[in-house]
Amino acid sequence: MRFVIQFSYDGSGYWGYQKQKNKQTIQQTIEDALFKIFAIKTKIVASGRTDTGVHAINQYAHFDLDVNIEPEKLKIALNHLLPNDIYIKKVSIKPNFHARFDVKKKEYQYIINTGEYNVFENKYVYQYNQDLDVEKMEKAAQQFLGTHDFTSFCKKNLTNDDYQRTIFKIKVQKKEKKVFINIIGSGFLRYMVRNMVGCLIEVGNYKQKENIVPKLLKEKNRQKAGIKAPAEGLYLKRVYY
Amino acid sequence: MRFVIQFSYDGSGYWGYQKQKNKQTIQQTIEDALFKIFAIKTKIVASGRTDTGVHAINQYAHFDLDVNIEPEKLKIALNHLLPNDIYIKKVSIKPNFHARFDVKKKEYQYIINTGEYNVFENKYVYQYNQDLDVEKMEKAAQQFLGTHDFTSFCKKNLTNDDYQRTIFKIKVQKKEKKVFINIIGSGFLRYMVRNMVGCLIEVGNYKQKENIVPKLLKEKNRQKAGIKAPAEGLYLKRVYY
Repeated sequence: MRFVIQFSYDGSGYWGYQKQKNKQTIQQTIEDALFKIFAIKTKIVASGRTDTGVHAINQYAHFDLDVNIEPEKLKIALNHLLPNDIYIKKVSIKPNFHARFDVKKKEYQYIINTGEYNVFENKYVYQYNQDLDVEKMEKAAQQFLGTHDFTSFCKKNLTNDDYQRTIFKIKVQKKEKKVFINIIGSGFLRYMVRNMVGCLIEVGNYKQKENIVPKLLKEKNRQKAGIKAPAEGLYLKRVYY
Repeated sequence: MRFVIQFSYDGSGYWGYQKQKNKQTIQQTIEDALFKIFAIKTKIVASGRTDTGVHAINQYAHFDLDVNIEPEKLKIALNHLLPNDIYIKKVSIKPNFHARFDVKKKEYQYIINTGEYNVFENKYVYQYNQDLDVEKMEKAAQQFLGTHDFTSFCKKNLTNDDYQRTIFKIKVQKKEKKVFINIIGSGFLRYMVRNMVGCLIEVGNYKQKENIVPKLLKEKNRQKAGIKAPAEGLYLKRVYY
């Protein structure tokens, strides 16, 4: 039986999504909960990884288990066993679903606090605490639209030879003192969103010009593209299947 | 020199505001930071205590120190030394100010999540996760207005013989799936807000009738007045001087 879970997590207490030896990760925590319920070692396959400190509003994973249990009951059992910072929103049974290979698009959201430092959001926004020129950021952001080689905006990976990704939609908007950056793309390379956001921040504080993006994309050189925005402002918001 | 600090804190990591032996408290943490700066043992006096897990958006304290330092510099030094969950918003010098005795009114806010469980707000709202009849709660709440003996709504304290307090304003409102209860009063007894909120929740879920409040006030018996709402939804929002 192929089960699919839709879940959210506060990433601040974890070494990212993916299992690592001797480190607390989201994957390990959910697999441990499944083991407690069924006493069967089960591997879960997510839509993709998230890094240390990165959050998920909606993440998906599948796993195979030869058990007879109603999805709603499994949801309750898992939430009972999981810590408060991981929450299973939905369990379903989908025979031919693959959480990674079936992904069509993903949406990430990044939140920057340009107002005064706020103790309650310390792990949930980037505490930039200074003004940003959101109009310039929005203009620069639109230059990411389309299909590009994102070498300048990701961590180099020896096992990866395809740095082409497509950005379908990107939006920078300010609500009160928060800047929200929403990006929908075909897929995202490691640190890609945080590097794109870092570049947009440097446009917003006038360290870079608003037409910098095409140049940086063309350079294919991570060294040129500026800072990486911190993990705590980043959310995997939606996965499109 | 009498210094006054205005500060906020995320109470989730602390055993409340007030200093206790061998326990991490807000007061101790700030006094430790002052000691690191000036190497002088300094006692700070706040507007009042908050309990374990309770937050403050605006708390005030004063302390006396014979030092020459610009308030803005002291603010920076303190924020540099304090952990991320305590933030000094303002430092000023006010010769005749007393943080406790000069309080005229206080406002507390309580937040209840009636929607789905949310991992990001686990320490910052009461995760009630069920619907509440906010209209009935608002009607019941208005019966707290005025001056009453709040024995039924507080923790009995042998050193306390005055249970009279005045509620100037109380409001229950819903924004999306959150219920916000704001209460302005002359002062608050221990657990008073959480017990009032607990009573209002029992009106909102039909365990109690909306006209229960005058009866409970009259009883002067804590046993009759129902549940105490959990600490994580409670914020000291404003102190009026």
